[in-house]
Amino acid sequence: MQTIDINKPILDKNDRIAAENRGNFEEHGVFVVNLLASPGSGKTSTILATIEALRGRFGIAVIEGDIASTVDSEKIRDDGVPAVQINTGGVCHLESAMIRRAVDTLDLDELDLIIIENVGNLVCPTDFYLGEDCKVMILSVPEGDDKPLKYPGVFQASEAVILNKVDTMPVFDFNENQFRASVRRLNPKAPIFPISATKGQGVAAWTSWLSSRIEQARAGAEA
Amino acid sequence: MQTIDINKPILDKNDRIAAENRGNFEEHGVFVVNLLASPGSGKTSTILATIEALRGRFGIAVIEGDIASTVDSEKIRDDGVPAVQINTGGVCHLESAMIRRAVDTLDLDELDLIIIENVGNLVCPTDFYLGEDCKVMILSVPEGDDKPLKYPGVFQASEAVILNKVDTMPVFDFNENQFRASVRRLNPKAPIFPISATKGQGVAAWTSWLSSRIEQARAGAEA
Repeated sequence: MQTIDINKPILDKNDRIAAENRGNFEEHGVFVVNLLASPGSGKTSTILATIEALRGRFGIAVIEGDIASTVDSEKIRDDGVPAVQINTGGVCHLESAMIRRAVDTLDLDELDLIIIENVGNLVCPTDFYLGEDCKVMILSVPEGDDKPLKYPGVFQASEAVILNKVDTMPVFDFNENQFRASVRRLNPKAPIFPISATKGQGVAAWTSWLSSRIEQARAGAEA
Repeated sequence: MQTIDINKPILDKNDRIAAENRGNFEEHGVFVVNLLASPGSGKTSTILATIEALRGRFGIAVIEGDIASTVDSEKIRDDGVPAVQINTGGVCHLESAMIRRAVDTLDLDELDLIIIENVGNLVCPTDFYLGEDCKVMILSVPEGDDKPLKYPGVFQASEAVILNKVDTMPVFDFNENQFRASVRRLNPKAPIFPISATKGQGVAAWTSWLSSRIEQARAGAEA
């Protein structure tokens, strides 16, 4: 019996365009973060805090992926940073062709960093490579410390894990040690950054890690 | 040019098996809720609170859908209620064939209510009919009041909206009036139940609605 994997042609096409995106980013020396998280974990607030910390040093743009609405890109633009909104119209993840169209509207020569805010979803976006330098994920305290057990794929795929809304730890029954141990089992190398994006707590450690990654990529490109 | 919609055969097959599930549920007079929400919005806690309120009146079982792990079904079983765990192994939603297999392990003659906890995801599960009587969704306060704008599909598909973790309202900047107005625009008929599943607040209004739905379905079946 012949088995047809209907996902294969879609993923093959996605990877081909992602490789073109990758080439485009490298040519212009732009570092690209693919940011993954559930709805409401604070992706946009984390991006705003990151912009606040890095805007003097780097040229930054944001690509916002949502099923519908322009709520998030408006917040970023209000902050004076170029933002492109992608509405997937029901699709649960961003694909590389959507990123290619979004990137066409940006002036890459002016940029050092693009943050892609993926659709709020801990499952589907993990499988679609967009041409990014790295995936980073956010889990927020209210979501619970058991999420690495339930959504192992995204914890394995991410090069850094941001634990957001740590200021609400007293309100929720969140065992940080247990969370750290579960993440370690899935992904021993990824740093974990506890932050409160809206209050600023812990943001410096995360943006310092991100800055070194941007500068490493630059040094690599110039070498 | 011929366009092939690769999703169509999958959805057709899903609907065919869902219709079989539907027939099976009706034959045994079992009311089935398909519960949709993001990761960490409190699906399992809401189910535990619902069991607590209804266990004297109805025979209840739970089908737990997760990418991985048996954390949730263990919690339900600890509570003395039959629970079947489905691990989708990476798939972002439950399908009707998975439900058929799970239902085969339950004694439907003993049951009045099955609650299906779908995979934590506000997007994909909406498209897959499982044979349920109704979809109910949970949004939790920490996720933010803008979620109806961003994930309209799930708000439109649900017959009731539970707003969970209302006890954390003082900690988060959640505008309940704005949230209610957004839900109304998408789904004017769905009742909204503000609850705190872990503290018990508001649970009675939700379980009273659910009880009448179960009894209506029964009355319809006996008529």
